[in-house]
Amino acid sequence: MGKVPVGGGAPLALQSMTCTDTRDVRATVAQIRELEEAGCELVRVAVPDGDAAEALGSIKRQISIPLIADIHFNFRLALEAIRQGADGIRINPGNMKRDGLRKIVAAALPAGTAIRIGINAGSLEKDILRKHGRPTAAALVESALRSLVFFEEMGAESLKLSIKSSDVPTMIESYRLVSRRTRWPLHLGVTEAGTILHAAVKSSIGIGVLLAEGIGDTLRVSVTGHPCEEIRLAWEILGALKLRRRGPEIISCPTCGRCEIDLFRLAEDVEKRLAGLQEPLRIALMGCVVNGPGEAAEADVGIAGGRGLGLLFRRGKPVRKVREADFAEALMREIAKMTKDKKET
Amino acid sequence: MGKVPVGGGAPLALQSMTCTDTRDVRATVAQIRELEEAGCELVRVAVPDGDAAEALGSIKRQISIPLIADIHFNFRLALEAIRQGADGIRINPGNMKRDGLRKIVAAALPAGTAIRIGINAGSLEKDILRKHGRPTAAALVESALRSLVFFEEMGAESLKLSIKSSDVPTMIESYRLVSRRTRWPLHLGVTEAGTILHAAVKSSIGIGVLLAEGIGDTLRVSVTGHPCEEIRLAWEILGALKLRRRGPEIISCPTCGRCEIDLFRLAEDVEKRLAGLQEPLRIALMGCVVNGPGEAAEADVGIAGGRGLGLLFRRGKPVRKVREADFAEALMREIAKMTKDKKET
Repeated sequence: MGKVPVGGGAPLALQSMTCTDTRDVRATVAQIRELEEAGCELVRVAVPDGDAAEALGSIKRQISIPLIADIHFNFRLALEAIRQGADGIRINPGNMKRDGLRKIVAAALPAGTAIRIGINAGSLEKDILRKHGRPTAAALVESALRSLVFFEEMGAESLKLSIKSSDVPTMIESYRLVSRRTRWPLHLGVTEAGTILHAAVKSSIGIGVLLAEGIGDTLRVSVTGHPCEEIRLAWEILGALKLRRRGPEIISCPTCGRCEIDLFRLAEDVEKRLAGLQEPLRIALMGCVVNGPGEAAEADVGIAGGRGLGLLFRRGKPVRKVREADFAEALMREIAKMTKDKKET
Repeated sequence: MGKVPVGGGAPLALQSMTCTDTRDVRATVAQIRELEEAGCELVRVAVPDGDAAEALGSIKRQISIPLIADIHFNFRLALEAIRQGADGIRINPGNMKRDGLRKIVAAALPAGTAIRIGINAGSLEKDILRKHGRPTAAALVESALRSLVFFEEMGAESLKLSIKSSDVPTMIESYRLVSRRTRWPLHLGVTEAGTILHAAVKSSIGIGVLLAEGIGDTLRVSVTGHPCEEIRLAWEILGALKLRRRGPEIISCPTCGRCEIDLFRLAEDVEKRLAGLQEPLRIALMGCVVNGPGEAAEADVGIAGGRGLGLLFRRGKPVRKVREADFAEALMREIAKMTKDKKET
């Protein structure tokens, strides 16, 4: 996909989608740059009409990550997107005629444009839906394989497949089934996952279960909200599974009747101060002496709090006692030193 | 566990832990009632000293869900908790002497008090930690099995096991391993998971992967924040996996350049209006005509938005066109009707 390798053992690539009007080049470029900053590696834009398709070239020239055009119904928009230099297009064979799909492949081949076949529970072929009654995993996989065969027969060389459903068990089952039937790269996502907390839960389970099984090459967390939240969540998922990490991991205890420091405030404070950091540090904020020192020993740096006073740790070794008011500041100083040390070695 | 069945095929039970000072009976009871209201089914309180242990009886008399005492270091606190009528106690054998554990089992048996053996990466037995070098899954499981054997030999009749780590892959691997070696019920959790969004991701993956494999009998989502958030997230996880559902599921698309209605606001508005509803309805809020009608057809009720006007669906059938300003209101009326219909049939 442009200069980002996808599939064949390449690192998982994170995708998001702009929510700007694609015809508004300035707003779209600004949002894509924000997304790049947040760690987005592939960006998709909606292309609902000719003007949006024609804006792609200008957008592409102003950004540094691969650009994917999201196209439905009208194959001519895909042809224009390819002409404009889009690195990939995403189409849904469920809402396009065969003849149009043939023209898309014919144009994509010489241009080297990647094609994602996006199967979606909301737009299955009518005969498949009739046969299965509902958009079950088997129905989604039948639709996906039918499309893959069609594209392969036309000689398509750069394909990717996604099977999205807002139903997590269906999504998991579909990808499991299809991963045994094809070697093309898979793009993971739970569609229409809702606002951020709902999306976090659904996507973490759906995408997380599959990634833990080694299934998936690119992914998008879908959030009803700002697309940067999608990227933030996507990195959280990869970090939790230790597949890739960007920025610090903060381990903080849930607090209980045993906690004698204001841990909520400390956690929020430290999170805010570290928002820009890309270093993959593990930072422990522990409210008490029960599990604190043990957990903090596993972290790169940590505080195990006590009454008004805490112990600062660095890679398992106590550094010094710190007053509660100075916890955040002491941690920041220690982190700054560690980041500096790392750069120098 | 009191009147809540745990293990042996019983429904997954959701647990949380208060963050009040347990000695403050009024505050603790108030928070437990809030938790009950939010759908908490088992509640745990920290018992760091004798006063906290003595408060348990009074707390227990004022709440309706089983009460679990969380005890470390001092076996006498466990004895007092049992005397006070706690339904369960949670102890960590890594920080208690064998002799104390014997006295706890001897007291728990006639009282019918359940005991959770809580293995924690932060407080492993020293010899096990030395042998494995780090709190690996194998180390955690060795510790768990050693404790189980010890409790079984003493004739304990009501045991539960947890193995917590803030490291998600370690947590998943530990429960997988131990679930093959014991038939006692398992309590799931990712410990020190951080503030809400981090906790949502880590817990959804850790707990979600295991639940999807049929592992787990009770669970706690650990959040640095208000404990009601833990329960909210726990229900989200069960709902996403279709294991149990409480309240509505809102399916809303992430919006893109194709969206012509203010979906963010609508989603937030609808979420807020439905906050109290316990009915397990599936509600679709779709920003466009591409996937909207298809997805909305799968939902109990939904809106597929267009330019200023949307289509209201009810169980797959169009009801009527609605102006954008009336989307939320029209949905609420439809939901009220559906809930009423259900109660009458």
